[in-house]
Amino acid sequence: MSTSLDRLELLSEHGSFGGVQRFYKHASSEIGLPMRFALYLPPQALTGKAVPLLTFLAGLTCTEETFTMKAGAQRVAAELGLALLMPDTSPRNTGVDGEDHHWDFGAGAGFYLDATQAPWSGHWCMESYLLKELLPQVVNEFGLNAERMGLFGHSMGGHGALTLALRHPGRFASVSAFAPICAPTRCPWGHKAFTGYLGQDESTWGAHDASVLMAQQTAAPYPGGILIDQGLTDKFLAEQLYPEAFEAACARAGQPLTLRRHEGYDHGYYFISSFVDDHLRHHAAALGVV
Amino acid sequence: MSTSLDRLELLSEHGSFGGVQRFYKHASSEIGLPMRFALYLPPQALTGKAVPLLTFLAGLTCTEETFTMKAGAQRVAAELGLALLMPDTSPRNTGVDGEDHHWDFGAGAGFYLDATQAPWSGHWCMESYLLKELLPQVVNEFGLNAERMGLFGHSMGGHGALTLALRHPGRFASVSAFAPICAPTRCPWGHKAFTGYLGQDESTWGAHDASVLMAQQTAAPYPGGILIDQGLTDKFLAEQLYPEAFEAACARAGQPLTLRRHEGYDHGYYFISSFVDDHLRHHAAALGVV
Repeated sequence: MSTSLDRLELLSEHGSFGGVQRFYKHASSEIGLPMRFALYLPPQALTGKAVPLLTFLAGLTCTEETFTMKAGAQRVAAELGLALLMPDTSPRNTGVDGEDHHWDFGAGAGFYLDATQAPWSGHWCMESYLLKELLPQVVNEFGLNAERMGLFGHSMGGHGALTLALRHPGRFASVSAFAPICAPTRCPWGHKAFTGYLGQDESTWGAHDASVLMAQQTAAPYPGGILIDQGLTDKFLAEQLYPEAFEAACARAGQPLTLRRHEGYDHGYYFISSFVDDHLRHHAAALGVV
Repeated sequence: MSTSLDRLELLSEHGSFGGVQRFYKHASSEIGLPMRFALYLPPQALTGKAVPLLTFLAGLTCTEETFTMKAGAQRVAAELGLALLMPDTSPRNTGVDGEDHHWDFGAGAGFYLDATQAPWSGHWCMESYLLKELLPQVVNEFGLNAERMGLFGHSMGGHGALTLALRHPGRFASVSAFAPICAPTRCPWGHKAFTGYLGQDESTWGAHDASVLMAQQTAAPYPGGILIDQGLTDKFLAEQLYPEAFEAACARAGQPLTLRRHEGYDHGYYFISSFVDDHLRHHAAALGVV
């Protein structure tokens, strides 16, 4: 991991709720290509405080800009003093044949894991990129608090948040999700992604399935509780998301879970923006920010 | 004006802060073509209350979706019980040669006036569309309060808000703007638009210039005050916006004006979202919503 500022190229900067919303590009050694991310620094960070970092993982087809632009999270992040990191959802412009052939696989669909299968294994290593490179670099460059990190996400990014939080115990203090893919080994999106990235041997898939991982826990990994919001008019709910599988796994593991089911809310950002304040406050409580 | 519901085609609906964010298409008789708009109904409207209507006019290149998606206004609209109407910024797909040749003229650049010059005069009549057709129809269809309407906007839409509020006394109870084009007769955007839509006789232009209109007032048209926010790193400020001209005109007319200049804020939606709550509260106070 390099921590040299000259590896970060500032693409744009916008004043936002007394802090700054920035967009960066950097040369990722884990991905082997340039990557983009968005970073919100609240006013408290601009005066030198080592604020906590909350990372949001976006869903299929999204970029670093989607949540940044649509969720309205900066207001409460500024109030609470939380930095927000929005990575991109996959490598881009890799030269891999077929990367843009599917909206739910390849570009915009990294699934927050390290692919083991050619040709994807060359660049599709989002788990290593995030855990070994981007988060440490951002924490270091901007003087954030590495002991107080939270992780959340939406849909594919909800899968990412739950699985990475379970695969890397102690790395995150808090986790939450909007409409996450809770059981990818059971749903079409997961089958397609795992077959492509991990291969046809399904025994390797469970290590990236939040419900499987949670069911294996012998003690609650997040005793402060996990928050999940799910809209009931979400058109992907029945076939792709399986919140009930994660709910059952949490019950088995003794993991406190607040799973809120909302009448009249769909899968999109009008849903996310309606409840994002609650997620930031959930993380702030776990991160010791009052 | 028709008030038949079957003229409104609901394109999509999304739960948002206890209310609903809807997108509609309708056949506009004023424009002579289909038009789109977005409407946010707060929870109070869903239970039959005749809530006030706040109309937001967007800037160059924007559509009915831009403010709807990026500004984060629904949260406080739900809290205060305000409906939000987001019209498109021009006719689209008119068949007029050259409508898409310029980002600052033609499609996406209606300037909220009725064009008098061919070929634009056929469809470019946004002032009549809004005042005679869309607002009455929306108020009527959704049982809103026609006596309590507010108007605001951004950039070209800030020009629209200020000029329409001054050209139609008594129609709106409150007005505000983000980075408005305050003196279009003096700036390149205004010269281009007014030459094209109104013709080369500059004597016709002042009737669509907020600073000219305000300077002609013999009493404050909005005694409760006008709110304008302006970012100081806005790259269009020096050449295109001229808030000082409107400020001088308000001083001459005795019109109370709160013009806030913000260090570190630019022309975009990170700026708007940072201050949109204040605008909604400004209107709510004028509209008698506590």
